Amino acid sequence: MLSSPLPAAPPVPSVLPALLRRYQAVRQQTADLCRPLLPEDTVVQPVIDVSPPKWHLAHTTWFFETFLLKEYADDYQVFHPDYAFLFNSYYNSLGSRVNRADRGTLSRPPLHDVYAYRAYVDERMSQLLGDLQDREAELPAAFTELFELGLQHEQQHQELLVTDIKYILSTSPLAPAYLPAAAGAPAAEPAPAAWLPVAGGVYRIGFEGPGFCFDNEQAPHDTYVADFSLQNRLVTNAEYLQFIEAGGYRDFRYWLGEGWDLAQQEQWEAPLYWVRKVDGWYRFTHHGLLPLNLAAPVTHVSFYEADAYAHWAGARLPTEQEWEIAARHFNPVAATGTWLESQRFDPQPLAPDADPTQCHQLLGDVWEWTYSAYHPYPGYQRAAGALGEYNGKFMLNQLVLRGGSCATPESHIRLTYRNFFHADKRWQFTGIRLAR
Amino acid sequence: MLSSPLPAAPPVPSVLPALLRRYQAVRQQTADLCRPLLPEDTVVQPVIDVSPPKWHLAHTTWFFETFLLKEYADDYQVFHPDYAFLFNSYYNSLGSRVNRADRGTLSRPPLHDVYAYRAYVDERMSQLLGDLQDREAELPAAFTELFELGLQHEQQHQELLVTDIKYILSTSPLAPAYLPAAAGAPAAEPAPAAWLPVAGGVYRIGFEGPGFCFDNEQAPHDTYVADFSLQNRLVTNAEYLQFIEAGGYRDFRYWLGEGWDLAQQEQWEAPLYWVRKVDGWYRFTHHGLLPLNLAAPVTHVSFYEADAYAHWAGARLPTEQEWEIAARHFNPVAATGTWLESQRFDPQPLAPDADPTQCHQLLGDVWEWTYSAYHPYPGYQRAAGALGEYNGKFMLNQLVLRGGSCATPESHIRLTYRNFFHADKRWQFTGIRLAR
Amino acid sequence: MLSSPLPAAPPVPSVLPALLRRYQAVRQQTADLCRPLLPEDTVVQPVIDVSPPKWHLAHTTWFFETFLLKEYADDYQVFHPDYAFLFNSYYNSLGSRVNRADRGTLSRPPLHDVYAYRAYVDERMSQLLGDLQDREAELPAAFTELFELGLQHEQQHQELLVTDIKYILSTSPLAPAYLPAAAGAPAAEPAPAAWLPVAGGVYRIGFEGPGFCFDNEQAPHDTYVADFSLQNRLVTNAEYLQFIEAGGYRDFRYWLGEGWDLAQQEQWEAPLYWVRKVDGWYRFTHHGLLPLNLAAPVTHVSFYEADAYAHWAGARLPTEQEWEIAARHFNPVAATGTWLESQRFDPQPLAPDADPTQCHQLLGDVWEWTYSAYHPYPGYQRAAGALGEYNGKFMLNQLVLRGGSCATPESHIRLTYRNFFHADKRWQFTGIRLAR
Amino acid sequence: MLSSPLPAAPPVPSVLPALLRRYQAVRQQTADLCRPLLPEDTVVQPVIDVSPPKWHLAHTTWFFETFLLKEYADDYQVFHPDYAFLFNSYYNSLGSRVNRADRGTLSRPPLHDVYAYRAYVDERMSQLLGDLQDREAELPAAFTELFELGLQHEQQHQELLVTDIKYILSTSPLAPAYLPAAAGAPAAEPAPAAWLPVAGGVYRIGFEGPGFCFDNEQAPHDTYVADFSLQNRLVTNAEYLQFIEAGGYRDFRYWLGEGWDLAQQEQWEAPLYWVRKVDGWYRFTHHGLLPLNLAAPVTHVSFYEADAYAHWAGARLPTEQEWEIAARHFNPVAATGTWLESQRFDPQPLAPDADPTQCHQLLGDVWEWTYSAYHPYPGYQRAAGALGEYNGKFMLNQLVLRGGSCATPESHIRLTYRNFFHADKRWQFTGIRLAR
Repeated sequence: MLSSPLPAAPPVPSVLPALLRRYQAVRQQTADLCRPLLPEDTVVQPVIDVSPPKWHLAHTTWFFETFLLKEYADDYQVFHPDYAFLFNSYYNSLGSRVNRADRGTLSRPPLHDVYAYRAYVDERMSQLLGDLQDREAELPAAFTELFELGLQHEQQHQELLVTDIKYILSTSPLAPAYLPAAAGAPAAEPAPAAWLPVAGGVYRIGFEGPGFCFDNEQAPHDTYVADFSLQNRLVTNAEYLQFIEAGGYRDFRYWLGEGWDLAQQEQWEAPLYWVRKVDGWYRFTHHGLLPLNLAAPVTHVSFYEADAYAHWAGARLPTEQEWEIAARHFNPVAATGTWLESQRFDPQPLAPDADPTQCHQLLGDVWEWTYSAYHPYPGYQRAAGALGEYNGKFMLNQLVLRGGSCATPESHIRLTYRNFFHADKRWQFTGIRLAR
Repeated sequence: MLSSPLPAAPPVPSVLPALLRRYQAVRQQTADLCRPLLPEDTVVQPVIDVSPPKWHLAHTTWFFETFLLKEYADDYQVFHPDYAFLFNSYYNSLGSRVNRADRGTLSRPPLHDVYAYRAYVDERMSQLLGDLQDREAELPAAFTELFELGLQHEQQHQELLVTDIKYILSTSPLAPAYLPAAAGAPAAEPAPAAWLPVAGGVYRIGFEGPGFCFDNEQAPHDTYVADFSLQNRLVTNAEYLQFIEAGGYRDFRYWLGEGWDLAQQEQWEAPLYWVRKVDGWYRFTHHGLLPLNLAAPVTHVSFYEADAYAHWAGARLPTEQEWEIAARHFNPVAATGTWLESQRFDPQPLAPDADPTQCHQLLGDVWEWTYSAYHPYPGYQRAAGALGEYNGKFMLNQLVLRGGSCATPESHIRLTYRNFFHADKRWQFTGIRLAR
Repeated sequence: MLSSPLPAAPPVPSVLPALLRRYQAVRQQTADLCRPLLPEDTVVQPVIDVSPPKWHLAHTTWFFETFLLKEYADDYQVFHPDYAFLFNSYYNSLGSRVNRADRGTLSRPPLHDVYAYRAYVDERMSQLLGDLQDREAELPAAFTELFELGLQHEQQHQELLVTDIKYILSTSPLAPAYLPAAAGAPAAEPAPAAWLPVAGGVYRIGFEGPGFCFDNEQAPHDTYVADFSLQNRLVTNAEYLQFIEAGGYRDFRYWLGEGWDLAQQEQWEAPLYWVRKVDGWYRFTHHGLLPLNLAAPVTHVSFYEADAYAHWAGARLPTEQEWEIAARHFNPVAATGTWLESQRFDPQPLAPDADPTQCHQLLGDVWEWTYSAYHPYPGYQRAAGALGEYNGKFMLNQLVLRGGSCATPESHIRLTYRNFFHADKRWQFTGIRLAR
Repeated sequence: MLSSPLPAAPPVPSVLPALLRRYQAVRQQTADLCRPLLPEDTVVQPVIDVSPPKWHLAHTTWFFETFLLKEYADDYQVFHPDYAFLFNSYYNSLGSRVNRADRGTLSRPPLHDVYAYRAYVDERMSQLLGDLQDREAELPAAFTELFELGLQHEQQHQELLVTDIKYILSTSPLAPAYLPAAAGAPAAEPAPAAWLPVAGGVYRIGFEGPGFCFDNEQAPHDTYVADFSLQNRLVTNAEYLQFIEAGGYRDFRYWLGEGWDLAQQEQWEAPLYWVRKVDGWYRFTHHGLLPLNLAAPVTHVSFYEADAYAHWAGARLPTEQEWEIAARHFNPVAATGTWLESQRFDPQPLAPDADPTQCHQLLGDVWEWTYSAYHPYPGYQRAAGALGEYNGKFMLNQLVLRGGSCATPESHIRLTYRNFFHADKRWQFTGIRLAR
């Protein structure tokens, strides 16, 4: 949801052409992500967390239809009366819907119709922005907020598309590639991690604008942390492999109880997508099955594995407060991270000669698990209406992740951004940074 | 599996061109059934019983590859080394395989590759038949049996394709049509059912050849039945609707215990695919949602519903012995039934002026539930090797159905044919004939 | 339910003292069976099939209260208004009840109250019989039937008490004994089994009176069987051990599909209660953990195991028709079997010098699995009212067992008696006799 | 686990008589709690959270046997070699054990043997303390810590005994009373709640000794809170009833998503144990079914209900930091709360004339849900060995509760005490205090 401290001045119609260009760019990026897919790939839901790409394409469209076109476009006719039932995700305010676990049972509407739906809504959105420009004085107060939210929402689903596509293709023993394998020799391993100290004290965290943020980044507030240190880079596959080889998956002492039980039950022996072959470890990637790159950051680990690794390494995971305080302190440059736009779809190794006094890889590459529950910040308020369900109702039993990943659009991230997943999830590009 | 009493004389090579023509015709019919589908429709598995059409297309091909090409074709190279894992259905003898419940998670190989697989195997089968013709003396003894079995097997999957496609399309609230709706006014209801007596005594049942049968139709054997009567036609939708309106779904006294529990749990109120609207009952069909045709035989009922209906009607279901004895007695003409080839995909009403002294609709239209367990006949022997798993291992906890349905290829049926399903299944074209 | 061909003459009051003595004897036998139990043993329900002994004690009492006292005793006051809810087993006709799976959650009423319930009902039953004697002319027509049914019902629960107590005690690693271990050296193994031929033909089976039978033993009817042979004794532990040692539990070819899947999932390696120790096989018994007696009949096998054993041995299980025809032919003496009254609670070995031309162990010792579905006999009719639920609604997906076991009261059995269980059940004293 | 800042001086043998007296008092209190139970009550486990009382009695005993007698008593012989398997709760370090869900399947060992086990261990503990007194110089360093931990552990199980007994008795429709109903007229409702402000700032929280604490209360550390207010008393049944009557259980807007789904699935309409009758609301209590006391604090609510109530009331739940800061500020007197020792087993109403400037009911009566995840405090370290599993491995996906309840022994509580349960649990005495 959009934060309150948006630009005080209401957007004037002269910004509308720019809004349209952004709209078109974001929408195009979604379609581009799906272009390498076959229609068959867009239908399946191998586990409940992974939605069919066809559903993502339609749901993001439904969002604009529901929150903008139905509200602001004159005489808007919905594309199809059943689509609200089909493509509502979780908004009780907006009525009944397909059971989440059944998204993968629906072969219809076919992909072609979903693209027609996208085209229809895009056309109407373009008209709406044109109409609003013609009626300068009438630009509705909430319109820009919802418009921005629609774009941010679609970017969130772009990230899910990347990770869901990976999971979908991974279920086939054929190990199909989404894109041709990227060339390149294995990278040299980075230098040993260095500890960067941060002084304790009262710090202000949370979003303070201007610009967009989600409601869960607010209210900005003070927090106290004691002195702490953070590692200057992410944990690598080489380091994580040591944990595996030291028996980390077979020693309950490193694990939280629920994590240990799950790891036993699911027979975890390595991160998701790792495959042990006669000649060593491989990983399933968007480019098919590739040898494990020891220099790259470890990814596709659950919180349980991240926490167990940290225990084994004699360290711990940071809190989200520590992470944000350190990030503000080290002021990372987003451009140095790996983002969706790179189309690499894998976190990249830190250069061996990276400056050991700087904190690297804070933005992009992998979402960093924190040992902080995803709870409301002090002063948090759910919005009224359906958008009150956007974030607030999920604020329990999940953990905060920070920094974005190689599947995140670069323009989507902020230092205050709070992503959240349950502790057992592994299909996102999740990784580890140690604290102490 | 093929029965033993096949033509005593081994097939001579001169029959090979005829075999090839049959092969091509059966294979073509499978592809024709899938032509109206979109790629998306061929992937999903909304419930465990319903396999993705893509899987049927590949599995039937794998059958020929495994049992014929790998055995009889010189230097046969499999199309793809992983396909045996992907498309083996349930043969433990042939190694591990995709878990049945996971067939719908596999978007790859895509439909296009599956058709390429079919073309590859068809080409090799054609070559093999040609080679065999060239080597007259070498025609292997078991070859014809396996070849015939492959065709019969593919016909069984044609029926499943028809019923699985229906289920797949039914899950969408869009109620899509597989084919355009057939024209035609509602039929007049048939005359009231008449009871046809059959004298008791010792009768011989089971297949006695010549020609093909499945192993479960053997050995032929004597059986004793007491005097009984059978209704001269199937139960209609109009009759079944009376059961519904009389509260049949709310009165446990008509039901078997397991059926009653299931009906409560699943909140059954009518056969599968029935939809109650403001203006009356509708049914989802291969042509979309259509008004209920009162004159047509009721279908998509479980054994539990068939048995409860019979109780309510003061009658009972026949045993499979009674059914076969009566069928031999009344000697039905297959051509009068509705079969797959008609492309009607729905059982058809009996003409109001049908001869009341004849037993109608015994073949085609709907599979008729019998109150007989699917157990081995006296003298039944499982075949050696993988084909011993074809039928024998399923001979428990299922019920026999007789007569074929509108989804059965006409050339596939026999009076001795034993189909079998669990008592709760409703997605096949199953119906009711009363006995007493 | 009581059969129709009861004594044509209505019971005269002069039989009432005899009825009372039988009532008291049966009721006493139930209480005697529970005497070795601690209150703790009478509460638990380790799996859904196994009911708490406390529940059996109360449910059999509720049966007399509901079907006799409430119907025939003047001004009968129920012992407690909630007991009908607590102790109704499965009669929909008689209202809602505790979910079967929750019987083991109820610590109250305590055992003491259940015995008070029994005493209260026994007292009223005694009064009722006395009153009926005083009013000679008024002896109700249905009374004797229901009275007899109540006793037979209680005997059925005596058998369940024996098997449920065994299961309950077996869950503790302490392997507690219900009774002290019986003395005695291991028996000599019986002579090799001999095949006894029976000529085929039309035979009459089913109960034809006089005396009591359950409704499922009717109507008597003709049936045809081909020539067959039956083994002259039960399969022994020694024989079954050969099957185990030959890898029978690891070779799918011997098994029905559902049985194989279950055996894998539950990791079956031997019959229920067998324990492999360093010095050989042991069995948990009513006398604690004892070395396996090789000479004794194998027991606690599921139908799946019995059928797999038969396959392995190159034989098959008999049908219930074959069993009854053979039993009538060989006319076994019940007294030679092992029954509940012996308090041995284990099937006993056949003497090595037993006459090889006779068919032994048909009655008592173990229930013999047949390959016959538990379906209604021709002419079967469910009774009206609640007792129509006694047997009829279970006539699907179960298999018939014949002959009674060492947990059956001797007076409870008949050659026509049809017991029935699902194919996976192992906690009853179930065993194997081979046919071919 | 025992905290580090214990008395610096090692306990001298002269304290041993006092230790023994405390040991005996705590152990006696456990036995006293079970005295009103019948043996049947001590066996059942109606849901996985509720352990059989027999198990609690034995497990607490096993704790002393394992951590003290086996470590410190010369030539200690365990009472029974299987009891470690039977009565270990969750210590992987100490080997395999009965599956938690199966505790209620074990009728043996019977209650009598468990009491013998207690007597045996008590006797050996008494001997050990005597021996230690005789060997003044040898008093082991860790002994006192483990001894204290054993007592605290047993007190925790006393609380569980109270709540588990309540649940066990509640499952019977007989609504049996654990103790006779307490007399007394319904209390007058307390005055409306007042808001007590607390100034924001950096505060120190966590245990700083001297005396015992659990390891999860450490390390003491600074934390920052903004200004906040807390209500001066607990939410009452009268207030909660308004939420119910206002449709609180039918309006998803007040609820967290997981809570809403659960409430729908379980059909929650009121707190656990509430029963709506024709003449109003009742609650099942340790004294049977009693009319709802409107003046008493609401209890047996899940976190989801507490949070939904707070939303509806326009407030929120406090964090554990706020709770502890406020509690230290208002410095409550434990003696004013309702504790286990009162044997009232129900939270008591606040007097109508209670001082509105004071913060009441902070200690005792009900555990107060906080909106704080149960995570490790800064500087928290798991202990080495088995006791490292005592608390640390549970630090995820649970919420902190503060203040103790009417089932907590008074000597067991501290202002820094952190209790923890999953958000869905309702069988503890859990309640609500509002913050804003």
